[in-house]
Amino acid sequence: MQRKPVGKLLLFGATGDLAQRMLLPSLYGLHADGLLPEGLTITGSARTDMDDAGYREFAKKALDEFLTEDRRDEGALASFLDRLFYQSVDLSNPDTFPALAEKLGDVSGGLAIYLSTAPSLFEAAITGLEQVGLAGETVRIGLEKPLGYDLASSQEINDAVAVAFPEDRTYRIDHYLGKETVQNILALRFGNSFFEPVWNARGIDNVQITIAETVGLEERAGYYETAGAMRDMVQNHILQLLALVAMEPPAKFDGNDVRDEKSKVFRSLRIMKPEEVPQNVVTGQYGDGAVKGEFVKSYADELGKPSSTETFVAIKAHIDNWRWQGVPFYLRTGKRMATRRSEIAIQFKAVPHSMFAGRGGLLQPNMLIIRLQPEEYVQLLVMAKEPGLDRDGVRLREVPLNLSMDAEFAGSRRRIAYERLLLDLIEGDQTLFVRRDEVEAQWRFIDAIRAGWVANDQKPKHYPSGSWGPSAAIGLTERGGVTWQDD
Amino acid sequence: MQRKPVGKLLLFGATGDLAQRMLLPSLYGLHADGLLPEGLTITGSARTDMDDAGYREFAKKALDEFLTEDRRDEGALASFLDRLFYQSVDLSNPDTFPALAEKLGDVSGGLAIYLSTAPSLFEAAITGLEQVGLAGETVRIGLEKPLGYDLASSQEINDAVAVAFPEDRTYRIDHYLGKETVQNILALRFGNSFFEPVWNARGIDNVQITIAETVGLEERAGYYETAGAMRDMVQNHILQLLALVAMEPPAKFDGNDVRDEKSKVFRSLRIMKPEEVPQNVVTGQYGDGAVKGEFVKSYADELGKPSSTETFVAIKAHIDNWRWQGVPFYLRTGKRMATRRSEIAIQFKAVPHSMFAGRGGLLQPNMLIIRLQPEEYVQLLVMAKEPGLDRDGVRLREVPLNLSMDAEFAGSRRRIAYERLLLDLIEGDQTLFVRRDEVEAQWRFIDAIRAGWVANDQKPKHYPSGSWGPSAAIGLTERGGVTWQDD
Repeated sequence: MQRKPVGKLLLFGATGDLAQRMLLPSLYGLHADGLLPEGLTITGSARTDMDDAGYREFAKKALDEFLTEDRRDEGALASFLDRLFYQSVDLSNPDTFPALAEKLGDVSGGLAIYLSTAPSLFEAAITGLEQVGLAGETVRIGLEKPLGYDLASSQEINDAVAVAFPEDRTYRIDHYLGKETVQNILALRFGNSFFEPVWNARGIDNVQITIAETVGLEERAGYYETAGAMRDMVQNHILQLLALVAMEPPAKFDGNDVRDEKSKVFRSLRIMKPEEVPQNVVTGQYGDGAVKGEFVKSYADELGKPSSTETFVAIKAHIDNWRWQGVPFYLRTGKRMATRRSEIAIQFKAVPHSMFAGRGGLLQPNMLIIRLQPEEYVQLLVMAKEPGLDRDGVRLREVPLNLSMDAEFAGSRRRIAYERLLLDLIEGDQTLFVRRDEVEAQWRFIDAIRAGWVANDQKPKHYPSGSWGPSAAIGLTERGGVTWQDD
Repeated sequence: MQRKPVGKLLLFGATGDLAQRMLLPSLYGLHADGLLPEGLTITGSARTDMDDAGYREFAKKALDEFLTEDRRDEGALASFLDRLFYQSVDLSNPDTFPALAEKLGDVSGGLAIYLSTAPSLFEAAITGLEQVGLAGETVRIGLEKPLGYDLASSQEINDAVAVAFPEDRTYRIDHYLGKETVQNILALRFGNSFFEPVWNARGIDNVQITIAETVGLEERAGYYETAGAMRDMVQNHILQLLALVAMEPPAKFDGNDVRDEKSKVFRSLRIMKPEEVPQNVVTGQYGDGAVKGEFVKSYADELGKPSSTETFVAIKAHIDNWRWQGVPFYLRTGKRMATRRSEIAIQFKAVPHSMFAGRGGLLQPNMLIIRLQPEEYVQLLVMAKEPGLDRDGVRLREVPLNLSMDAEFAGSRRRIAYERLLLDLIEGDQTLFVRRDEVEAQWRFIDAIRAGWVANDQKPKHYPSGSWGPSAAIGLTERGGVTWQDD
């Protein structure tokens, strides 16, 4: 793929929470490490009225608050702020766009737009950009979720975007793809020779993907109450992780090859019939409980009213292709869980025969754990002989082979996932962005489950805050002889 | 296998170096941990005239010198010494045996004999034992190497032993089999599901087995000058390691099944024709050099005369069976090497295709390292993505997944290899002892090489002390595109 760095970056939502916490610190980090193209300007835009100096002050305040200590450098900070400009725009008002175009000036050297806004404003924003000439061939656009709430609304947004931005200039962001350990899934699978021969239904018993949060509703009530765990976490992050675990080897690490293979996985996801949903999907909503030694309120109490929004979901999914036939993929996510953890657990099959059985040597099947949060590490659990002289026995024990990203790569700074994605947006590399066919195939899987909830009048089950979800989620795996990896 | 612990242990060579450094400390260790059968008596025997009290004093002195600090326990020491008795015997004089038989008394409760003596005395010892009734059905015998110096002499000894002791009561000792990490080769290979699918010619490029010593001749001139590295190390230890790496999965971890599979490997070793030897075997003898920062003398200077004994040997071996066709097994051992190390390195094949090649991601083939000495650990070298934001690249790096026996099993005491073997001799488990057919197949392989040396008048090449052997040993692997794992 030919990379084409842009000369200008336009940041919509430039005064928002994401900009302050993630985007500005990420851009600063890229700048400080000399990774931004020389002369790249960053124009912030939002409804607030402000001039360049005002935005620089705003950005400085955000960086003071959110930069980690090791990243502060007065010189780099000053030169970073010099890159910043500002132009106020009301996305819903086309009359405010010409001033933006004027501010940006010539975009023939390339413009990357980062659009983070409410879905209801997507269409207006695209139209506005197009009308003032900010959607030409040299312009690419990065889109933050949520991109719709079901297949139909997602298609509507994608259609609206496609009017001005063809697919090869559209960058759909899933920040999980910016995480080092997520990219490492590909390096581990396809950079080593001993995983691939067992990485299939003959070698793997089941796959578990967990994104567990300890937080509750926080300040996101408006959005979350309409989204729920399924759309907030499963449709995007969890299914992306599933695709990276399940996909066939791409010929190249580039946007076409990697996304072709992910897309094939999404299209092979078994779509549930409504009557299959209750057996394969468990939803929950957290009640009162204790998290980290403190009492926490139920979801309904936080919200201030009863609700049927799910704050937990567990799914037994299947991929109907040659490689994965019969291998369940257990997916779960929830708020107010026992511990914060994002993790993929690959449970290998047991060895076909244990030569140690007659001597008392018990074997655990091997497991590969890819931990994404809060730590980043890869752990391979293997059986080894326990040293010692048991009179008539061989004691075997499961021991971990550890690859700690933090320890092994101690020299390298741990980066924000958005740094990788912003750099790729600026440079023009779509590998780690989500293609339209992926999104839509994801929604087909999700919509079918949600239709099942309606058809079966399936309501979230209660679970105490600080637990691993409703009992039914335990039953979901145990019925198949599988135990969630909760250690 | 039905274990039958004996009630008495007879230790020939009871005043020798091995007894002092290894056997007495090992027996004490078993005793202190309550692993010896209750009431087991240990009768020492040698030419020296001594009574029981004398031998107890002798043993106490040896233990004072050779027990590690953490193992000293006055109570355990006193009760251990109570188990000891002594009877002097001259193996070459049959008249001295009746007194031994009298001392031992009734052996119907089982007697285990540990025979460590010069090969020339084997036959006399066996005959003497038989004549005084110490070779009956309740008696088993453990034999220390050297068991001959070639196939013919080995058969002679084995025949002499077999007259009194059938194979199921004969325990040939190779102390490498008592090492924890050696036994762990079986646990790793057959207790885990992901090694076996690639553990063959499709998945493995080559295997390297190294036993490198830094010591020179020491006090063993008489023996070593007639043996050489080939008979001292390759015929037994290195070939045993090779068999454990190469063997098919035994159905059970017991003496018959494990040794059947090892024996199949030995019988599949490609026997070299004389003309093939120069291309596949390199011998060397150390010259002056520096080891650990000190000048050390050449072998000839240590010996006090010129010699054509090899102190180094490197072999490119092949196993002619289905699993290993085309996979070279590189074997080497030497004295006065750069560092002390016993290690097995399994070099896997490269992945068939690198998806990262176009992005600058270089892949190293995977390697599994099983380190036996001086530390004990298992290390799996895998490729992972190096964290970071290279503009147009994916940097991959080889990182180790470590299983440190010392760290992981910190609670368990590191034992002398002889503890395992003495316990198994006393208990009656032959799994970790060498069967006659194994020994003889090993000799067939060794004898063919030595015949090649004679036929080609191949003399050891000079190598400086403190190096990795003669240059020709490097050429041996490099000609096949393989580099010794010397890091």
